[in-house]
Amino acid sequence: MDPEEFRRAGHELVDWIADYRLRAATLPVRARVRPGEVLGALPASPPEEAAAFAEILHDLDAVVVPGLTHTQHPRNFAWFPSNASLSSVLGDITAAGLGALGITWQSAPALTELEQVVCDWMRQLAGLSEGWHGTILDGASAACLVALLVARERATDGSQRRSGLQGEPSPLTVYCSADAHSSVAKAALLAGYGSDHLRLLAPAGPARCMDAAKLDEAMSADRAAGRRPAAVVATAGTTGTTGFDPIGAVAEVARRHGAFLHVDAAMAGAALLLPEHRHLFEGIEEADSLCWNPHKWMGTVLETSLFYVRDPAELVGVMATDPSYLRSSVDGAVVQYRDWGIPLGRRFRALKLWYQLRLDGPEAIRRRLRRDLAHAARLGELVAAEPGWELVAPVQLQTVCVRHVPDGCGPDELDAHTLAWCEAVNASGQAHLTPSLLDKRWMVRVSIGAEPTEWDDVEATWRLMQEAAATTTPGREG
Amino acid sequence: MDPEEFRRAGHELVDWIADYRLRAATLPVRARVRPGEVLGALPASPPEEAAAFAEILHDLDAVVVPGLTHTQHPRNFAWFPSNASLSSVLGDITAAGLGALGITWQSAPALTELEQVVCDWMRQLAGLSEGWHGTILDGASAACLVALLVARERATDGSQRRSGLQGEPSPLTVYCSADAHSSVAKAALLAGYGSDHLRLLAPAGPARCMDAAKLDEAMSADRAAGRRPAAVVATAGTTGTTGFDPIGAVAEVARRHGAFLHVDAAMAGAALLLPEHRHLFEGIEEADSLCWNPHKWMGTVLETSLFYVRDPAELVGVMATDPSYLRSSVDGAVVQYRDWGIPLGRRFRALKLWYQLRLDGPEAIRRRLRRDLAHAARLGELVAAEPGWELVAPVQLQTVCVRHVPDGCGPDELDAHTLAWCEAVNASGQAHLTPSLLDKRWMVRVSIGAEPTEWDDVEATWRLMQEAAATTTPGREG
Repeated sequence: MDPEEFRRAGHELVDWIADYRLRAATLPVRARVRPGEVLGALPASPPEEAAAFAEILHDLDAVVVPGLTHTQHPRNFAWFPSNASLSSVLGDITAAGLGALGITWQSAPALTELEQVVCDWMRQLAGLSEGWHGTILDGASAACLVALLVARERATDGSQRRSGLQGEPSPLTVYCSADAHSSVAKAALLAGYGSDHLRLLAPAGPARCMDAAKLDEAMSADRAAGRRPAAVVATAGTTGTTGFDPIGAVAEVARRHGAFLHVDAAMAGAALLLPEHRHLFEGIEEADSLCWNPHKWMGTVLETSLFYVRDPAELVGVMATDPSYLRSSVDGAVVQYRDWGIPLGRRFRALKLWYQLRLDGPEAIRRRLRRDLAHAARLGELVAAEPGWELVAPVQLQTVCVRHVPDGCGPDELDAHTLAWCEAVNASGQAHLTPSLLDKRWMVRVSIGAEPTEWDDVEATWRLMQEAAATTTPGREG
Repeated sequence: MDPEEFRRAGHELVDWIADYRLRAATLPVRARVRPGEVLGALPASPPEEAAAFAEILHDLDAVVVPGLTHTQHPRNFAWFPSNASLSSVLGDITAAGLGALGITWQSAPALTELEQVVCDWMRQLAGLSEGWHGTILDGASAACLVALLVARERATDGSQRRSGLQGEPSPLTVYCSADAHSSVAKAALLAGYGSDHLRLLAPAGPARCMDAAKLDEAMSADRAAGRRPAAVVATAGTTGTTGFDPIGAVAEVARRHGAFLHVDAAMAGAALLLPEHRHLFEGIEEADSLCWNPHKWMGTVLETSLFYVRDPAELVGVMATDPSYLRSSVDGAVVQYRDWGIPLGRRFRALKLWYQLRLDGPEAIRRRLRRDLAHAARLGELVAAEPGWELVAPVQLQTVCVRHVPDGCGPDELDAHTLAWCEAVNASGQAHLTPSLLDKRWMVRVSIGAEPTEWDDVEATWRLMQEAAATTTPGREG
């Protein structure tokens, strides 16, 4: 495709995207397709002839859009906010259009240095000290894996440059809350620690925080048994209930036992932008690494995960390779981000964050986050005040965790009821919520924070939840 | 930013991108900025006020473009072709605009199923059997890491679900050519094998292929010493010289010793699209996994790395987690790509490949690849025929590896001369080449295959190389 063809099609596409965003609110939030339906609507064999752009636009409307759950819908309360702010979209378009290749500083100096700049801007906006050095990874799963690899190498003084984990005499252990994201367990397993050496600590209290004293006990017990505590992952804002592990207390224990501390603030890290919420992250400066995803609540386009470390030299020591075809005369004078993560090559990731910060401005972003927090607090009050409804966890941020408990409903019946009314809401197409297990029992999460969500949307959804719960109450169906 | 503001800015940006592609040929290929220059041109603190889009466009022209090495320049012969075809750019723009979230089939069914479709289209276009099942990862580094993790778990019958690598009695070993990409060693180290257990086999012959007999010897020796051969990585198209390991012979040896075989065809995999070049990949059907990157020579926007496995159940068995907040009623009936790699969430990666295949059509892509191969063959003939010049490796694909050897030049002097004339070419801004070590001596790679490169560009660069070599010949400088 030549630049003039691109120009024509690009203009059509920009209009199509703007129109999509304008009409998103009119679409059913959750996709209504059956498994295999999109697949079946597309040719089984690749095309031989080139198609006109109009055919693509037709298929977007006919096949793709009906096959999507609309993350950018104002009544999307599922999973977590995954905004793609249009300012950031412009940055991502620029990255694709420039086609710059980030494999070494020399291959795209601005790609590297703009990443340094925006990571530092974000550090400042988050109120973090100058002791943090950041990069952009694709997601929190990669960040946790990298952190646990660095922890593994710290604990073994660089086993990977010798005979690997198998050469190590005493087993390495990893600790996190049982409420930590599944990616923590995945990272521990992939990094080779083994599930037998992963300690999932029961969260304590209604706010479901990691208990630092229990962590201390677990680490002491492991050490007494000849094992070496290598890493602790503290969660700031769990996926289920937005619980916050007490980072300061956890850091003190981790340090005392010689373990690396990674903080996973994937979703909730956006709250660092609000000074009045930084107390939730108390002790963060004592951690070794930190991840939070602007591609969630803050609204940067996927895949934008900030990963900060206190000691870049340690990180680079674990992740670096130095092949001749990537050497240049400026090595040593520049940052080589290929040595800060798993991939060698990267696209121009920093642009989407740079555009968003400049075009929207931090104050507008903070205002939107505060709006969402106010909505969540208000919904929490309504739920708490409504007979038959329960808040199953304190509303610490923008997630409201609820159950509707009909009179005399036993645990299994309650589980079925919870899933039933949630499904009724979702099947309506008017809103989208996701259920989650809490101590092995189902509850429903209302995760507030889609960019276009206003109070009317929350209120309408709350009414819908009440109607759905009423019509699905055991003994009252049909 | 609201949709109407996006519409206005988006139109401007599309024009800016089209114009950038039109003028790329007039820019110096390699960035002329010094380390820190881009960083110094940007504010050290984040903005507080929102900026107008015109300011962004101004900074793109003033700071970003001069700070880039232009991958899309017709005289870019550095590293490897990293095209970003404008048809594919449109797909990536759509992905950003839709803001779909791929964390589970339910969150975006079309995102998952379109990925199944395009991976299968690409399989068919590459002439691979129906026994391959694909996904899109971010790059070949991740693919190799995933492959070596699966290999580790196969060799240990699932050590990660027990006590990890440390619980394994006999060390696991990994084999690849010494010419394999640095990401293979990185993956082996990150996967916990340890560098002591990584065997870098000396490539044999002028075409620098892995010697299957030597592989057999190495594996036998390791087994005799109580070690377990876990994985072999064969390279189809090495980074240095585009050498091809004999996959069929390597596969036979790997299977006999019970090792997993991963094929890294990151750059050269595009040649699978050309039936007349598939002989280079003979035996590919015997491998366990295969990676190639449409985001290189073929021209799909970064990050588009195809990863195929023969046994998806084995892959999922290693990579899967099953948290409650991601469960849905369709589990089991659908593909969950989160269990095919490291990240949980993905953007709508398939669109950029779908658009490119449909808007350009496979035949136009094949025509372009054949054009590049013809250019490389022709340049190879010119170099071989020119006194004082040497082809240091056979031209097997689109990379031409050369040295200029002045009379009576000793090895160290020759290295200095090679780096000097290459730097003279690059400093001119008229073309960009990268040097690489071959048996510890420098040579220069002319990697042909930027989308806009025509024969005139190659010919002009060859003249430039000759001039640069003449003016930097020892004893003739100044």
